[in-house]
Amino acid sequence: MSQFEIVQIVGGSVTSVPGFEASAVSSGLKPQGALDLAVVYSTHPCVGAAIFTTNAFKAAPVLYDQETLGRNRTNLRAVVINSGCANACTGDQGMCDARSTASAAATVLGVTAQDVMVMSTGVIGMRLPMDKILPAVGKAAGNSSASQDAGHAAARAIMTTDTRPKESAVRVVTAEGDFVIAGMAKGAGMIHPNMATMLCLLTSSAKISPELAQKALEKAMDDSFHMITIDGDTSTNDTALLLANGTASMPPIASSSSAGYKSFVGGLTHVAVDLAKGIVRDGEGATKLIEITVCGARTRAEAQKVAMSVSRSLLVKTAIYGQDANWGRIVCAVGYSGVDINPARVGVSLDGLELFRDGAPYDVNEERASEILSGAEIGIGIDLGQGSARATVWTCDLSHDYVTINAHYRT
Amino acid sequence: MSQFEIVQIVGGSVTSVPGFEASAVSSGLKPQGALDLAVVYSTHPCVGAAIFTTNAFKAAPVLYDQETLGRNRTNLRAVVINSGCANACTGDQGMCDARSTASAAATVLGVTAQDVMVMSTGVIGMRLPMDKILPAVGKAAGNSSASQDAGHAAARAIMTTDTRPKESAVRVVTAEGDFVIAGMAKGAGMIHPNMATMLCLLTSSAKISPELAQKALEKAMDDSFHMITIDGDTSTNDTALLLANGTASMPPIASSSSAGYKSFVGGLTHVAVDLAKGIVRDGEGATKLIEITVCGARTRAEAQKVAMSVSRSLLVKTAIYGQDANWGRIVCAVGYSGVDINPARVGVSLDGLELFRDGAPYDVNEERASEILSGAEIGIGIDLGQGSARATVWTCDLSHDYVTINAHYRT
Repeated sequence: MSQFEIVQIVGGSVTSVPGFEASAVSSGLKPQGALDLAVVYSTHPCVGAAIFTTNAFKAAPVLYDQETLGRNRTNLRAVVINSGCANACTGDQGMCDARSTASAAATVLGVTAQDVMVMSTGVIGMRLPMDKILPAVGKAAGNSSASQDAGHAAARAIMTTDTRPKESAVRVVTAEGDFVIAGMAKGAGMIHPNMATMLCLLTSSAKISPELAQKALEKAMDDSFHMITIDGDTSTNDTALLLANGTASMPPIASSSSAGYKSFVGGLTHVAVDLAKGIVRDGEGATKLIEITVCGARTRAEAQKVAMSVSRSLLVKTAIYGQDANWGRIVCAVGYSGVDINPARVGVSLDGLELFRDGAPYDVNEERASEILSGAEIGIGIDLGQGSARATVWTCDLSHDYVTINAHYRT
Repeated sequence: MSQFEIVQIVGGSVTSVPGFEASAVSSGLKPQGALDLAVVYSTHPCVGAAIFTTNAFKAAPVLYDQETLGRNRTNLRAVVINSGCANACTGDQGMCDARSTASAAATVLGVTAQDVMVMSTGVIGMRLPMDKILPAVGKAAGNSSASQDAGHAAARAIMTTDTRPKESAVRVVTAEGDFVIAGMAKGAGMIHPNMATMLCLLTSSAKISPELAQKALEKAMDDSFHMITIDGDTSTNDTALLLANGTASMPPIASSSSAGYKSFVGGLTHVAVDLAKGIVRDGEGATKLIEITVCGARTRAEAQKVAMSVSRSLLVKTAIYGQDANWGRIVCAVGYSGVDINPARVGVSLDGLELFRDGAPYDVNEERASEILSGAEIGIGIDLGQGSARATVWTCDLSHDYVTINAHYRT
């Protein structure tokens, strides 16, 4: 069937893509000398595509990147990413700091400032400490390496409350040539669609135009980052950036109906879903990954709306944390989703075990339910019984640790 | 200015209204013989008005009450309320059980079944244990009393995870005569507008038509129960019922433009806000009441949307719990509310202390902020700077105890 094959690169990183280098340093933004600033550099000019937060308060790096991409979508060379400070709600000074950061990297890399993108994540409303940032940028930009370890270090440097880095890399094998797609992302709070991730960088060796790259990125995000939620908060800094440097031996991807484009979207979606699920699995305080699939909907949008309603329910999330098969809360969240449903047709199952059928309780095997709920990954199935559309979203449970982490994040 | 005066009846209950009696018993639904079933009875026929949950899965008592009110809005005599079991998602059997409950009360009270309303709250998906319910209904209906203590006992009997009863009563003094409005309500989870409360019963001695009673109830709810959120979950059972028995010495309220109507809405809103704030203050695990006022909006709907976005943010709620003046999270939730705002005009304050002005951080007095956040009631002010409309919503913080309570509610 498929005209292409996706091969996972075990232990891969953004530097698994030929021509990409990375480095990570400690600028002093995080305590105890932890890595907090990364530079990812391409030896070849890149096509760029991006999706940004829909929040009205866009952080300075988001505004800066939008401006940069508006002028330059084919000659991008590097991105500087810091954690520990979001450079959000920092006014004109914040924009100035973003510009200075890009400039400092460009000088060392021997490119121009408008070839360099920036991303920031961390506390909102704090200025970037430029006396720490600028020397760190210089140091990182001057020491990039194509090794996988350099990629891994970069993935660590962008973490905030994440407990582990999120990385994924695949080789896409096609009849016309192979290319690599890799990515890294960071969560772990303020996670909700549009964008769901705070930061995600995708690298690829594919030869693709900016227009097709943007289209492919949007498609891949629709099936991954736009389908996850941790706490319902859409941050001020969310950015997914794709850089494709065209170093692969392949003909350029010609159109959105070509086999090459399909394989690119396939590989990109694979990496994006990997990263998105990684973010949810490492959601603040999460002990379980919850996959909610709604089928039998009239449209995909309605399926997604119902799935999101359930995935946002604090009562569902706390019940799963407590390993309680409280299907009443799932049904309740279906009922207030805003989608016009027929209660008498709804069914709910837990990893295939029926809990509720045709709008009425089912004789639940509580023992089996407890067994399922003791696992680390829980599948909730909801059949609306009124169509053939479906959607899958991912979320995590809500634990005591979520509260602990967020009650004292800033202090 | 005002043509009427509202006088709080200290220690009042639903039986503070002349002609109303109450009783409460233990049916065995709750452990250790706790009160779990209440009957409120009026010696005189009542006009009835109600607002029900918007959830597509309406519990049997909600469907039963809608049916009853469709036939009888002027001759209601009693309401039976049980806690411990919601009688929701129980299919045709659930409707049958609701009917039997009303019938059993009617027989003892010497009225007809369609003069009796029912309400249930508790676990979803469990049948009412009729072998316990029916004798308890008989006992309660045969022992009602007009004492304030009987009202207090009823308010206790309807509690689930509530830690204390919510009651309020006022005397409305007008030139044309006085009347009383009283109410009781229960929270404490699945609290979100449309309806926000799970159960609320309002009693009054006013002389009013069913149409004006309904209109007044909707107006009062818009400023109270529709303005609170604890966890964003709208339950299957939410019901606010108003019973007015016309025992007051006053001319009937003639129209919605009359002084009498205005005083009735004034009194009803006062009681409803009291109860709504009581529910939030006793929200599951709550340690603080948060009052969020958005001003400078173009419309009240936009002000409410922004206020609700902030009040639902888990990050804001956990920050307040941790007594952290993390205004960035407030600004962030304003930004993703979906309302078209100008970031450069937004201001945020904490009990009058400015945190953020004209879209940029303000030199915050952190010491004063900490002092404010150590209190039990926190006021967040948000000025959108683009109009003159405003709205106030109430929510509570999100604590470890919320997770503890909800991880093991059913078991």
